Amino acid sequence: MASVAPGREAPPVSPLAPTSPADLPPLAGVRLASMAAGLKKKQGALDLMLMEFAAGTTVAGVLTKSKCPSAPVDWCRKNLDKGKARAFIVNAGNANAFTGMAGDRTVEHTVSATAKALGAKASEIFVASTGVIGQPVSQDWIGKHVPDLVKKLTRDGWNAASEAIRTTDTFAKRATRTTRIGFETVTINGIAKGSGMIAPDMATMLAFVATDAKLPADVLQTLLKSGADKSFNSITVDSDTSTSDTLLLAATGQATHAKISSASDANLKSFRAALDDLLLDLALQVVRDGEGAQKQIQINVTGASSPKSAKIIARAIANSPLVKTAIAGEDANWGRVVMAVGKAGEPADRDKLSIAFGGTQITKNGQIVDGYNEKPVVEHIKGQEIVIDVDLALGKGAATVWTCDLTHGYIDINGSYRS
Amino acid sequence: MASVAPGREAPPVSPLAPTSPADLPPLAGVRLASMAAGLKKKQGALDLMLMEFAAGTTVAGVLTKSKCPSAPVDWCRKNLDKGKARAFIVNAGNANAFTGMAGDRTVEHTVSATAKALGAKASEIFVASTGVIGQPVSQDWIGKHVPDLVKKLTRDGWNAASEAIRTTDTFAKRATRTTRIGFETVTINGIAKGSGMIAPDMATMLAFVATDAKLPADVLQTLLKSGADKSFNSITVDSDTSTSDTLLLAATGQATHAKISSASDANLKSFRAALDDLLLDLALQVVRDGEGAQKQIQINVTGASSPKSAKIIARAIANSPLVKTAIAGEDANWGRVVMAVGKAGEPADRDKLSIAFGGTQITKNGQIVDGYNEKPVVEHIKGQEIVIDVDLALGKGAATVWTCDLTHGYIDINGSYRS
Repeated sequence: MASVAPGREAPPVSPLAPTSPADLPPLAGVRLASMAAGLKKKQGALDLMLMEFAAGTTVAGVLTKSKCPSAPVDWCRKNLDKGKARAFIVNAGNANAFTGMAGDRTVEHTVSATAKALGAKASEIFVASTGVIGQPVSQDWIGKHVPDLVKKLTRDGWNAASEAIRTTDTFAKRATRTTRIGFETVTINGIAKGSGMIAPDMATMLAFVATDAKLPADVLQTLLKSGADKSFNSITVDSDTSTSDTLLLAATGQATHAKISSASDANLKSFRAALDDLLLDLALQVVRDGEGAQKQIQINVTGASSPKSAKIIARAIANSPLVKTAIAGEDANWGRVVMAVGKAGEPADRDKLSIAFGGTQITKNGQIVDGYNEKPVVEHIKGQEIVIDVDLALGKGAATVWTCDLTHGYIDINGSYRS
Repeated sequence: MASVAPGREAPPVSPLAPTSPADLPPLAGVRLASMAAGLKKKQGALDLMLMEFAAGTTVAGVLTKSKCPSAPVDWCRKNLDKGKARAFIVNAGNANAFTGMAGDRTVEHTVSATAKALGAKASEIFVASTGVIGQPVSQDWIGKHVPDLVKKLTRDGWNAASEAIRTTDTFAKRATRTTRIGFETVTINGIAKGSGMIAPDMATMLAFVATDAKLPADVLQTLLKSGADKSFNSITVDSDTSTSDTLLLAATGQATHAKISSASDANLKSFRAALDDLLLDLALQVVRDGEGAQKQIQINVTGASSPKSAKIIARAIANSPLVKTAIAGEDANWGRVVMAVGKAGEPADRDKLSIAFGGTQITKNGQIVDGYNEKPVVEHIKGQEIVIDVDLALGKGAATVWTCDLTHGYIDINGSYRS
């Protein structure tokens, strides 16, 4: 949860936070409201957010692959294939996860209160909760605040919404893109939260994206899945995967562009690129707010036997505590990269492996390069954005994964989260 | 490597170190020598060890599954199936891993120097190296010290040998068991090193075990594999797997017991139990010296759909940074255990899951138990040996995995290891 144990300072804002955060413009067909509902411990902190959509809005989603998902995730999964949304209602402070049947009843109450207030069907209301796992909440814990939220709905509520969904995040995460479909301008806005319990292989935290484009739900799902694989599914902070990870994308259909009926429509090219870019922007903000992060690490694996193999190897490097602590200590300990490649269990040949840090070749064909000069590597590793290239020289499989370093800050934050 | 960066203090001895370390007795058919060969940075530190065996000694081994193994591991793998050993030669300070063809030549030189000095075949000499990866070493780096080592061979060298193989270990690791085969007393001695880069699914550090029992190599291999699965392959410090992990077991055949030709011989029952117990003792010493460890954590998973599934789930919990930091912070944050079960990807039903800390039931059937009293759990988690029981209530699969907590000490040690 967002609050910090008594007597402890909140962690300082990440040094990797954006210096000028995006200011999200209004989006046709979307209204938002946020409030301090007392769900976070900290007095007066925004912790409940309603994002309302115009009638006819389509929706897509990517949800956690956890085998123990939260009650809200179960609800979203059940209703996503109907493809329609009238609202996202999101709280921070309690994840309503591992709360048994009571958790399901809380979701049902939240949904019915929201549907009633907006004149919508229950299946059009999507719920997400983040915070502590396993603390039961009363049934009307969120629902009772819905009438107040509805009164506050405004087109200008994006920035406040990005604040309301924060937990241990040290900065609010948002991004916007203006693009076009055919000749018509469309906008995409997105907000996200997450700084720990972030691992790929699923939508990896909470993120809510909306656009005024008019797109069928199946097209939206194809675009979102493809974009998530290259962004939220390619980042990792600590290899831990939340019970609650949820990425939702709504399209209000208020823009008046040519009709789109296929994800491969040529008119979607710019939109698709803008959406991918926005998703990567949000995902990297999550990495850059990784608990205790001082450095962003980008791992590019090439020459693997397949793209899948490349991603497994990139993740093994990104999740290695020994690699991550070495970077934190500004030590270009490439031997630990070799170790991580080896432990991935994927095809690799020690004597073909090449490694570069910050573009400087360190090893080639399994040995340190002749006349290797450590100086540019030492310079690079003192920076905030570290790039590690690993070439396996076996095939054409390539993948990029982003992570952050592992520092004392991570231990500080996670050793006293709940108390 | 064992040495610590200039200006840094060596990490303090683990609070989980044994209060009275085992004193290993001589073993018929084994002589040992250790020396300070200047391979570690620290002046005068023992860093080279020779364990010599009587003619006729059989050998078994379990080696890293890393796809980028060190040159010494390659050598051992090639010669283990011949089943005969006359010596183990082991250095600390440089792992001779990722050193290309030069690394192979160093191993060959070490082996031939040792074989020559002992009048043995090359295939009877086993090599292990631990320390920094990727730093080339000269060909005669170890071999040139062999004549000096041979002069020093003594039956009483066990304790010194356990010192010579240390790297970041804060205490030397050794264990001894006296048992019997039939009516004949036999002894088993073992030494180990390792405190980071420890993960299961292979022999997980360096360990050298010897017995005076007379056992065919295939019997020895069966016993060792079975024991390793329940010990070295059931521990994890940081999920990282070394390029060099090596567990070797030699049987000198000096004891005069009934002939054994099968691992299932009833006369082996006591011996097998003693070997298993010694291996677990050594493995737990490694966990208890986990870099920065303040607490040992035992994770018992029951009710899984299969034993394999139980082990995957137990490892997911043991490797979760969020679980490990919670324990470090003395926070019984069982919600993170749920998260880890979920991310394991194995069959699990949120609403059947039960969790106990230190024997106190916290959740049952997916919810917190009625009238849950946190007090005994808070007491338990302040101790040094934490036990987490997870019951999935799905089947009969069970597994136990041991790990340690994740503390500032881990970051301290690993953020400045090489500099």
